[in-house]
Amino acid sequence: MTTPEYIAGSKDAIRQFLDRFDVFLIDCDGVLWSGDHLFPGAVATLEMLRKKGKQVVFVTNNSTKSRQDYQKKLGGMGIPASAEEVFGSSYSAAIYISRILPQAHPHLKQKNKVFVVGEAGIETELESEGIPYLGGTDPAYRRDVTPEDYKLLAAGDPKALDPEVGVVLMGLDFHFNYLKMCYAYQYIRRGAIFLATNMDSTLPSAGSFFPGAGSISAPLIKMLGGQEPMAFGKPNQAMMDAIEGKFKFDRSKVCMVGDRADTDIRFGIEGNLGGTLGVLTGVATEKDFLEGDIRPAYYVNALNDLLEAA
Amino acid sequence: MTTPEYIAGSKDAIRQFLDRFDVFLIDCDGVLWSGDHLFPGAVATLEMLRKKGKQVVFVTNNSTKSRQDYQKKLGGMGIPASAEEVFGSSYSAAIYISRILPQAHPHLKQKNKVFVVGEAGIETELESEGIPYLGGTDPAYRRDVTPEDYKLLAAGDPKALDPEVGVVLMGLDFHFNYLKMCYAYQYIRRGAIFLATNMDSTLPSAGSFFPGAGSISAPLIKMLGGQEPMAFGKPNQAMMDAIEGKFKFDRSKVCMVGDRADTDIRFGIEGNLGGTLGVLTGVATEKDFLEGDIRPAYYVNALNDLLEAA
Repeated sequence: MTTPEYIAGSKDAIRQFLDRFDVFLIDCDGVLWSGDHLFPGAVATLEMLRKKGKQVVFVTNNSTKSRQDYQKKLGGMGIPASAEEVFGSSYSAAIYISRILPQAHPHLKQKNKVFVVGEAGIETELESEGIPYLGGTDPAYRRDVTPEDYKLLAAGDPKALDPEVGVVLMGLDFHFNYLKMCYAYQYIRRGAIFLATNMDSTLPSAGSFFPGAGSISAPLIKMLGGQEPMAFGKPNQAMMDAIEGKFKFDRSKVCMVGDRADTDIRFGIEGNLGGTLGVLTGVATEKDFLEGDIRPAYYVNALNDLLEAA
Repeated sequence: MTTPEYIAGSKDAIRQFLDRFDVFLIDCDGVLWSGDHLFPGAVATLEMLRKKGKQVVFVTNNSTKSRQDYQKKLGGMGIPASAEEVFGSSYSAAIYISRILPQAHPHLKQKNKVFVVGEAGIETELESEGIPYLGGTDPAYRRDVTPEDYKLLAAGDPKALDPEVGVVLMGLDFHFNYLKMCYAYQYIRRGAIFLATNMDSTLPSAGSFFPGAGSISAPLIKMLGGQEPMAFGKPNQAMMDAIEGKFKFDRSKVCMVGDRADTDIRFGIEGNLGGTLGVLTGVATEKDFLEGDIRPAYYVNALNDLLEAA
């Protein structure tokens, strides 16, 4: 296994690195900011890349926010971006459902509705692709299960289960409950395809960890005897295919930038990108990058190390 | 592997079977009833066993009911039973926490509270052993997570996390939500021991399946990178040890009766009981018992086949 090249501190190395790529796919949390804390020089580094004519794409596994929501978050951090430059796991799932699933599963033309377990970001992205859905933020599903629910769900009664649902899409849901678990399971038992926006087990926040989208899918996987959903967040290549489908780039001229070896760097390596850049402002340590099973091609201490060549 | 002996239809075989055992551990759902439907002859069979001087113990993985609740359920089905004859996974967990854990983990003397994810049955059994607890059916945990929760939980603030909690006990919880997942995870991260009443992935009801206690633990296992809880329901032998500790029987004179090979029959075999009896009124088929990896020593079509020898 090759040793990652440390390019911070060397103008030549940084210039050669920048010259190799036309497109930078950038993970946000741990690279541009941590929680609500923007890293110094992050905005200036993005400006430098754009001035050099580089395409910048913000790639996030966060399924609770739509591209518009994320654009606002970037703007609030002082980072100008268009919604087109944002690529999230909910959008990736929506593209898959609208453009690829109908070809792979022609029977879904009669069962084209999606049962959503998740927040508004998923709904917005499904709407943007014209996909009908139910569940999600509908308050009708934010209640206790009743004896009547058991009867209707067990019988597959259309008063409970919409016969047009052909897909269950699960993402991070702050309003997850027993009733939603019942619905998702009954739809999948009756043939609905099991999808997840992403499988991150935890959500970093406030300097600790909280349940992530992968933890919301976990009860269903257990109930289904181990059946895993198809998932769209990094490192799943369904997301890379969707990004490439939109930006039509030459993968050899693309670099993935991230702080996590097992998601970001793996995403770039398995996607056969021209390169990967690790930063040490997030989860991974220098030891992880130098001695781990998954190693970036290049690494710096912080994204703003790239400014040294400006 | 030996072939199970089919004893229905032969008075001699049934008499020899009954003579071999002093104690019958009986699974309820699938053996005595299915949902709300009592099987014909179930009551008479239990009466016959008692007349012959056999000890009968009702063994259930259901964590939502206390022994008293279960006694009422049995009574409602026309089956007279004392609470002493009932052994549930919540009671088994409570015994372990009160009698075994303090020896194995002396530091828990200062952290003797249990954070409960589950229903009233768990609380009743913890109370019966004098164990202090929080969480459970407390409505304070039946709400959405707030930004303040993230801060307090991440900081380990005693306003959110009780420093005396040393155990997290998870069972089936019809009011499971994101906030409870956060609390359980933060307690375990801070050193609390991770226990589960039982790991059944599903709960049979109304002729279908719904999320079981194992599905409630699944998000935590995912967040903890695969760390499994210690669990007390069948087939876990912690439950057998607890039953033996109470009834002081000779295992060679005990027979486990059940409808599921992977829980009931396995529970009896791994517990080195004198025998196991499978019934075909529940989950397992005759083929399962005759050709499966886990086979009972004896089997009948229904529990009431034992009446033939009366």
